[in-house]
Amino acid sequence: MTHSLVEEFNDYRSRMNTQIMGADNLVLKRLFNLDTNCYEAGTVDVVAKEMIGLACSMVLRCDDCVKYHLGKCYELKVPTSQIFEVFSIANLIGGTIVIPHLRRAVEYWEALNVQ
Amino acid sequence: MTHSLVEEFNDYRSRMNTQIMGADNLVLKRLFNLDTNCYEAGTVDVVAKEMIGLACSMVLRCDDCVKYHLGKCYELKVPTSQIFEVFSIANLIGGTIVIPHLRRAVEYWEALNVQ
Amino acid sequence: MTHSLVEEFNDYRSRMNTQIMGADNLVLKRLFNLDTNCYEAGTVDVVAKEMIGLACSMVLRCDDCVKYHLGKCYELKVPTSQIFEVFSIANLIGGTIVIPHLRRAVEYWEALNVQ
Amino acid sequence: MTHSLVEEFNDYRSRMNTQIMGADNLVLKRLFNLDTNCYEAGTVDVVAKEMIGLACSMVLRCDDCVKYHLGKCYELKVPTSQIFEVFSIANLIGGTIVIPHLRRAVEYWEALNVQ
Amino acid sequence: MTHSLVEEFNDYRSRMNTQIMGADNLVLKRLFNLDTNCYEAGTVDVVAKEMIGLACSMVLRCDDCVKYHLGKCYELKVPTSQIFEVFSIANLIGGTIVIPHLRRAVEYWEALNVQ
Amino acid sequence: MTHSLVEEFNDYRSRMNTQIMGADNLVLKRLFNLDTNCYEAGTVDVVAKEMIGLACSMVLRCDDCVKYHLGKCYELKVPTSQIFEVFSIANLIGGTIVIPHLRRAVEYWEALNVQ
Repeated sequence: MTHSLVEEFNDYRSRMNTQIMGADNLVLKRLFNLDTNCYEAGTVDVVAKEMIGLACSMVLRCDDCVKYHLGKCYELKVPTSQIFEVFSIANLIGGTIVIPHLRRAVEYWEALNVQ
Repeated sequence: MTHSLVEEFNDYRSRMNTQIMGADNLVLKRLFNLDTNCYEAGTVDVVAKEMIGLACSMVLRCDDCVKYHLGKCYELKVPTSQIFEVFSIANLIGGTIVIPHLRRAVEYWEALNVQ
Repeated sequence: MTHSLVEEFNDYRSRMNTQIMGADNLVLKRLFNLDTNCYEAGTVDVVAKEMIGLACSMVLRCDDCVKYHLGKCYELKVPTSQIFEVFSIANLIGGTIVIPHLRRAVEYWEALNVQ
Repeated sequence: MTHSLVEEFNDYRSRMNTQIMGADNLVLKRLFNLDTNCYEAGTVDVVAKEMIGLACSMVLRCDDCVKYHLGKCYELKVPTSQIFEVFSIANLIGGTIVIPHLRRAVEYWEALNVQ
Repeated sequence: MTHSLVEEFNDYRSRMNTQIMGADNLVLKRLFNLDTNCYEAGTVDVVAKEMIGLACSMVLRCDDCVKYHLGKCYELKVPTSQIFEVFSIANLIGGTIVIPHLRRAVEYWEALNVQ
Repeated sequence: MTHSLVEEFNDYRSRMNTQIMGADNLVLKRLFNLDTNCYEAGTVDVVAKEMIGLACSMVLRCDDCVKYHLGKCYELKVPTSQIFEVFSIANLIGGTIVIPHLRRAVEYWEALNVQ
């Protein structure tokens, strides 16, 4: 059941991204393209970039963005203790208003790990 | 099924608005009233106003507000290419954090069009 | 049915809080601790503190935070007319973008009262 | 010198409000009107309302709004210990990102008190 | 004196943009490029796009972004009555927390017109 | 002259922090304490933590917070190319609304380096 949380997120995301690309809007296409480039290895390594993406998503309180970066961190084998340290920074910067998003993030991280 | 996305939104919205009005709070009543006045034709035309409402709702990342203004744009027969241009401005101003809301907006716009 | 809205919120909140505490992250533990201390009676009374928490949650547009403080206000027997006055301040400060959260708040307040 | 911080804020605010009213935009006029009504004594007392306004301004990180409500709290003789309790709730809810606004709020509160 | 408000903004903006471009970061360069493309005439006309940019900047409470789009609206000869209608939509959507930004926007619009 | 930008920020920050601590509010004291603990080396290294703090400050558009973390990055000898990569992630996530803060960040980073 927790498995489907990950699948559901990935399926909806893929399906809608396809539809957005199909609309053939140049600005949106380039923005999506830039989004891919941005997290590639550069002078900052990929793990640090994903942690930055995760923390920013959390302080901006976007559950889907948090899920996306958690998925990436999982692929990169970031250990749970590091994930929670990123969570703690984001919750301190963003305040207790972030806590409901922390709950959903912890649930999703668990779902990724029991796949 | 996509049809019910529109109905579900409109039904919940109507039902709760009735309940809010029933509470008889003067400030809320006037605020709701002002909200109606604000989008009426003035020196700025109605379509431009709805596009402004749509873009602001998107950068502020409020799915329900996006749905409401998409419904209005649909009634005003704004073409899909214009809707996507408004989406592109909003996503550029608001950043990639807006993308999950873009996905749900595209889904809702589709639902409006297959009714 | 409305009853389960309250139970569902409380159950998920408790379950995930337990899991977060289990992760043994010191910063998060202290932040949660501070969150409890902060709303205890001080030179500002408990009702005013909960109203502040409710209004801040609303302008920051966090449904779960709004639910939490509505639950506390209900325990403290804050009358509906006062709840709506807090709602009106929050909606005026935060603007019409807050209205969808007002709808869900009104639904939850109703659910608390028909338990 | 600290005195002028208060005067400068009030002077600019009055001058620009006059200019905004002069533009004769009905929606803005009514919004300003509603803003005045909203903080008048109702079923929630004036001090609690100003505390709510102060806390909301702080979590939304608007220095000028914080200054305005601090001015009102000063007129209502809210003691410093209560002001700091409101600050502490707002900083906990809004997180450490609020701290720079806390600094400016503390400076302004001091300026109000040494007039 | 009001003239310098416009010059000061434009000078600082140009100077820092040059420095940012000089850093030769590809993602930032493309983002700036996209920002230019986005407001060019498409299926939505340039005036409507600038109004959208202005309103979004206002609800997101970015004074510099508001100034930039006001400058563009001034070049496009958007009449003051239309500017205030856009202001009114933005202030209603964004709430009274936007008012301090409205004040600075009105001051800047005035400065543009007395050049 | 650019030197004073750094000094001015640090002086004001120190002075107001002292005043805040002097108010003897327990919640604020603990929050400040937690803020210090949070960026100490843990399972995530100090440089990654400061980059996270910098990016979060930028997407939340807090100039003072950006300055603080830039100061820390400077002490930790983070190279300019890495700083700009963090800037690029933050500007992509947060959108063009972040650009005015990027300008001020670049100015401050320059000021730190010419000290």
